Amino acid sequence: MKQYVQQYRSELLENVVPFWEKHSPDREFGGYFTCLDRDGRVFDTDKFIWLQGREVWMFSSLYNRVEQRPQWLQAALQGAEFLRKYGHDGNFNWYFSLTREGNPLVEPYNIFSDCFATMAFGQLFRATGDGQYGEIALKTFENILHRSGNPKGRFSKAVPATRPLKGFSLPMILCNLSLEIEHLLSEERVEETIHGVLHEVMEVFYQPESGLILENVNPDGSFSDSFEGRLLNPGHAIEAMWFIMDLSVRLKRPELARKAVEIALRTLEYGWDQQYGGVFYFMDVKGHPMQQLEWDQKLWWVHIETLITLAKGYQMTGDPACRRWFDIVHNYTWSHFPDPEFGEWYGYLNRRGEVLLPLKGGKWKGFFHVPRGLYQVCTTLEKLGGSHEGA
Amino acid sequence: MKQYVQQYRSELLENVVPFWEKHSPDREFGGYFTCLDRDGRVFDTDKFIWLQGREVWMFSSLYNRVEQRPQWLQAALQGAEFLRKYGHDGNFNWYFSLTREGNPLVEPYNIFSDCFATMAFGQLFRATGDGQYGEIALKTFENILHRSGNPKGRFSKAVPATRPLKGFSLPMILCNLSLEIEHLLSEERVEETIHGVLHEVMEVFYQPESGLILENVNPDGSFSDSFEGRLLNPGHAIEAMWFIMDLSVRLKRPELARKAVEIALRTLEYGWDQQYGGVFYFMDVKGHPMQQLEWDQKLWWVHIETLITLAKGYQMTGDPACRRWFDIVHNYTWSHFPDPEFGEWYGYLNRRGEVLLPLKGGKWKGFFHVPRGLYQVCTTLEKLGGSHEGA
Repeated sequence: MKQYVQQYRSELLENVVPFWEKHSPDREFGGYFTCLDRDGRVFDTDKFIWLQGREVWMFSSLYNRVEQRPQWLQAALQGAEFLRKYGHDGNFNWYFSLTREGNPLVEPYNIFSDCFATMAFGQLFRATGDGQYGEIALKTFENILHRSGNPKGRFSKAVPATRPLKGFSLPMILCNLSLEIEHLLSEERVEETIHGVLHEVMEVFYQPESGLILENVNPDGSFSDSFEGRLLNPGHAIEAMWFIMDLSVRLKRPELARKAVEIALRTLEYGWDQQYGGVFYFMDVKGHPMQQLEWDQKLWWVHIETLITLAKGYQMTGDPACRRWFDIVHNYTWSHFPDPEFGEWYGYLNRRGEVLLPLKGGKWKGFFHVPRGLYQVCTTLEKLGGSHEGA
Repeated sequence: MKQYVQQYRSELLENVVPFWEKHSPDREFGGYFTCLDRDGRVFDTDKFIWLQGREVWMFSSLYNRVEQRPQWLQAALQGAEFLRKYGHDGNFNWYFSLTREGNPLVEPYNIFSDCFATMAFGQLFRATGDGQYGEIALKTFENILHRSGNPKGRFSKAVPATRPLKGFSLPMILCNLSLEIEHLLSEERVEETIHGVLHEVMEVFYQPESGLILENVNPDGSFSDSFEGRLLNPGHAIEAMWFIMDLSVRLKRPELARKAVEIALRTLEYGWDQQYGGVFYFMDVKGHPMQQLEWDQKLWWVHIETLITLAKGYQMTGDPACRRWFDIVHNYTWSHFPDPEFGEWYGYLNRRGEVLLPLKGGKWKGFFHVPRGLYQVCTTLEKLGGSHEGA
């Protein structure tokens, strides 16, 4: 497995990071362009808060973890200042999108904008020690917890009494976020948050009978036989499992990592396309037709997140199935997603693995999953000894 | 072209209508099941108001236009009574979806639920003469006009001042709806509605430079260089052109039909997939990557609506390009969408024309486009003489 370290590191530092450093910063209005064509040209100037926050986080994270390059801190700061000025409504409710100049386009209906803003400012606080960034992260995080019972608030179109489902995404993200900003939180707050989200992910959304994680369940955790209730998002579940593995280290509970490996492998076997390779984007747990017309597509983040989970799973448990699957997913990923001509990675492939959209960045794909994944995989594999650690 | 009449008629009366008569009515709770698997089995029981309204309309329409079969009237009434009782909030704001029993699931955020309810009750009033149905249609229609300036109301997530786009869908549907319920409206109301929507469709959303119709424009009709502003939906534009042809007959303005044919042909040439055949679902007018991951899929309604437009265009103008394109689209449609084994038509094909979802009905595909299209094409082609009428 160690053979891969250099490949992931050089892809990160010599291909992906330079592509975004060159094409993404908006040096006129601040913030970042994320709608980048195949060759890096900006094809749309709207600024999506998810991606602005994630890019601040990524540059700060490179600065904190890889090397204290001034241009990375500078890149993080120019995104953060734009976000601080224009990204929220004054009460740390973060808009969904802004115009290039910073005028709000879409209201703060999406709580994940707040999650990625929290990550951004938490990581930037580590880089700068500037207390105002820490405060933004903290206030936003408290706001998220406050809104978590009804994340969409007045923008929800569901009649609440009829089928009040709860979603997997928020507890999943909080598994990661609670460790990301642990340095800003009281011990008590960390404990209660981690305890709550671990319970939700591993005991409520995880279904022992099928071995799978559902995207939506009834408030009491039972199965809802509806489009939403039957929905599986294999990439989501597999990504969550490396968040759980990180928690298992933090909590010194190795049995959590073993359970996470078991769930990830089961999900990967279930979600793998036997015909064309790659992991499906959406599935229905009863095999019924889905509402998501993109269900059979192969997405960049699903595959890179799966590689992180398999690398961590192997490093922590030594399970040979992690190693076998890592090779399979690695081969699929590297033969389909990187663009040898213009650099960076494609995001959206059809079922057969052909490029569906040539973009390198858009409304949802930014400077996040690919560089985070390359970083996580190479640093995880570096920890392996001659044989793996966990053996 | 007349050779096709029998094929479309028998597909309607011997395949499609019996499939829905058999599998769709919910004889226990009223209304219809629309989530039907390949073989007609119900895989989900939620009731979507778009599809409930459209099915009432279709059964009423068959009764009014094809033959006064009591079972068609009965099928329409059982849907209409369910809608009347459970479909709206008491003020003729129509929910988006209900549970099988009729409890509201999704709030009345979508004005097209109201449009299809209006069509349903207007057509059922024709069938029954029952004034209470006419009144529901009329009240709902007035509500639509009242809401038309801000269709999503409190559910809109756009910050209104920043980029206040207006959409093509509502004026497009009103072209059809104003004739559908003309028997219920004052002459003045009909005139002002038709005048307004004709102007919107043919002078605001239609772009003379490109010859194409945009899905969203600035309030003053100018181009918005944004994801929404660049969006093309070729099937939508082509469908609207047969609504315009119907208006050209009603208004005795044959030049409108000629213009509609010109726009439809231009759109079809632009939207046709040269590589695999079929019409793309979405395109970007500047050729940029889109947000719609389903952009390259081939959808049933796009193709059947295109056949209506080409048949009417040929019948009204005699343009040989309509005849040539009718053959091409007819061949693509009949070799890809009908299911020879279990009957009815598939709805969703991938770019290559392979079945993407095996359903016969779902959240969006119901008893509407296929039967309406088969009916419209066969009755249009019947009107042709030895040569066409318009020659």
